[in-house]
Amino acid sequence: MTETGCAGFRWSGVAAGIKKNGQKDMGLIYADRPATAAAVFTRNRVQAAPVVLDRERIKSGRCQAVVVNSGNANCCTGEEGLADARTITARTAEALAISEELVLIASTGVIGSPLPLPTIIGTIPEAVRRLSATGLFDFADSIMTTDKFRKVAVETGVMADGSRFTISGVAKGAGMIRPDMATMLCFVCTDIQADPELLAEALDNAAAHSFHRITVDGDTSTNDTVILLASGVSSARLTAEAEKTVFQKHLDAVLLQLARMIVKDGEGATKVVEIVVKGASSTANARKAAETVAHSPLVKTAFFGADANWGRIMAALGRSDVDFQPSGVDIFFDTVKVVENGLAVGGIAETQAAEVLRQDELCLLIDLKTGGQGTASLLTCDLSLEYVTINSDYRS
Amino acid sequence: MTETGCAGFRWSGVAAGIKKNGQKDMGLIYADRPATAAAVFTRNRVQAAPVVLDRERIKSGRCQAVVVNSGNANCCTGEEGLADARTITARTAEALAISEELVLIASTGVIGSPLPLPTIIGTIPEAVRRLSATGLFDFADSIMTTDKFRKVAVETGVMADGSRFTISGVAKGAGMIRPDMATMLCFVCTDIQADPELLAEALDNAAAHSFHRITVDGDTSTNDTVILLASGVSSARLTAEAEKTVFQKHLDAVLLQLARMIVKDGEGATKVVEIVVKGASSTANARKAAETVAHSPLVKTAFFGADANWGRIMAALGRSDVDFQPSGVDIFFDTVKVVENGLAVGGIAETQAAEVLRQDELCLLIDLKTGGQGTASLLTCDLSLEYVTINSDYRS
Repeated sequence: MTETGCAGFRWSGVAAGIKKNGQKDMGLIYADRPATAAAVFTRNRVQAAPVVLDRERIKSGRCQAVVVNSGNANCCTGEEGLADARTITARTAEALAISEELVLIASTGVIGSPLPLPTIIGTIPEAVRRLSATGLFDFADSIMTTDKFRKVAVETGVMADGSRFTISGVAKGAGMIRPDMATMLCFVCTDIQADPELLAEALDNAAAHSFHRITVDGDTSTNDTVILLASGVSSARLTAEAEKTVFQKHLDAVLLQLARMIVKDGEGATKVVEIVVKGASSTANARKAAETVAHSPLVKTAFFGADANWGRIMAALGRSDVDFQPSGVDIFFDTVKVVENGLAVGGIAETQAAEVLRQDELCLLIDLKTGGQGTASLLTCDLSLEYVTINSDYRS
Repeated sequence: MTETGCAGFRWSGVAAGIKKNGQKDMGLIYADRPATAAAVFTRNRVQAAPVVLDRERIKSGRCQAVVVNSGNANCCTGEEGLADARTITARTAEALAISEELVLIASTGVIGSPLPLPTIIGTIPEAVRRLSATGLFDFADSIMTTDKFRKVAVETGVMADGSRFTISGVAKGAGMIRPDMATMLCFVCTDIQADPELLAEALDNAAAHSFHRITVDGDTSTNDTVILLASGVSSARLTAEAEKTVFQKHLDAVLLQLARMIVKDGEGATKVVEIVVKGASSTANARKAAETVAHSPLVKTAFFGADANWGRIMAALGRSDVDFQPSGVDIFFDTVKVVENGLAVGGIAETQAAEVLRQDELCLLIDLKTGGQGTASLLTCDLSLEYVTINSDYRS
């Protein structure tokens, strides 16, 4: 992967001084010409000012710039917060000599404090000056909060007619991650030509297979935003079914890579666990069972301790409000079966399972054997000492 | 409080060697004559063998002995586990020269391992020999798992006719605590005379006001059991409305004291937080909002860090699927208002709130101001480093 994103875009990331540690905290994406745009937002009832503003503006299906700050969420900041968001997009539009309506905005960080507006306004010219076709990594760095590593994924695809397209995605984690929400900030640029409707459809599909399948702590953010911009610089065009499939496949891949990175970098995470539930009476029940297990503090601390404590998994399943017979359940860690028909397999299985749990990545497979075909899978991480340390003094 | 429980009962607590550390792990309650009995059990779909057995036997409304072990839950142990539970009650009945049908059983500890049956059977004679009217504390000690202190509460009441009764309650925590379940082991003895139906009604009411209102980690146990035994040795009798009210008041007090102790001793807990939600559109919504806040890892770690991070409370409310306007919310820590109409009060309030959060006990009051009268309150604790430490190596 290079620092060059896809054609038709420039990026920058600078330090405005919002973060106390002096790290980059303001980023800008700029499309040389107005791009086709689609977005997915948080389903939390409490929505940050930038989300409120973007929901209106995305209706046009067009966008030429996205201005982002980390270190402050501009949420629960009332009318003043909304006015601040408008002011920032207006000043960014001025500096770029484009229409204000073509600027989207996103914020992430502490909830409930007013934005340091003069600082941000004062830094816009520098963010514009630094825009560069090789600025993708700078931008990725500028949106990080408790992230330990930058999250960038790039895919290139080829249409049936030989035309090529690139998709460059950037995301930030690392807490307040729960499925069924957009669950973080994510910005994806592509050079494909596309109508806004097709682009929105592709984004919804890709989010369902990626960001809606990950959970760190079960808390959801008030600022979750995924924005997809298409510059149309490539000769590839998103139209017929076959072309949609090619693009969808690569867009899914970009978002899934970013989703995995977010879980891997979940606050305090030491391991990534894929939880697969099969044999449920319905897909919804499989999903509910997987979520209950994924959110159980007792299961997550056992993952952290590399303890194959399947009794806690059974207890979580038992309170998940899903129909199954405890005496029908099989549980595997990777290929090691630890529970068969609700009973411990015992013997060497326990030792082997502990080995699996010491891995960085593993799969927990739960077969409810209800006779149904319901299946679901989620990506999650463990609950570690560091999660508590990070979150007990986040604001100090 | 003395070591003497109420009249008509004897207790013991001994070390059978189930716990690796040699501490007391087997307890016995014996009523001199068959007592009237009522019980509440876990709502988890996965139910331990003792729960399965007790559910049958409690139908008689009579019980003369309860045998309890800690260190092993006898859950997910199949037919063998059920047979083990039967064997233990049979041997206990033999040693006490009473009917097996009058013996209830409870277990707590690791799920999924077979009981060390010979050890337990071999210790029954000692448990019987040690039975004593002053054995309440020994019994309380024997049912502890990760508990740091024994949990005993005693109340004495006086009926309108001057007759007196005593209620002696014993409970164990400290993890897998969630409302709407019996949520732990609890054994309550009283000397009142009562029919089983009235006793069951009183127990259901008391549980609703105590154990169903506490949460430590949102996980529920497979073994939760609350048993209430009435020896009838007192001249006080539970019959008319006024007498029911007097008894109910004291039973509520015993269970509420035990519930508070369980939260205070929640795994790793450094503080007890009462979460009150008012002004919700319904009681159910108030309850749902309170539970979502109480189970949010981000809110609980902020409690631990004494951080008045109300933004996380707003975010949790926002995902609770309860209708409210963010711009209508007020939030208080004790009497300190930190949020008014969805916005930070700011100034000295933040400092004062941090002071409140450094207390051992505090109240978080959330007024949703929907115009409705829905109110609910829950007791919970913080999520600390020690919670993770305890639960990451529980079985090792």
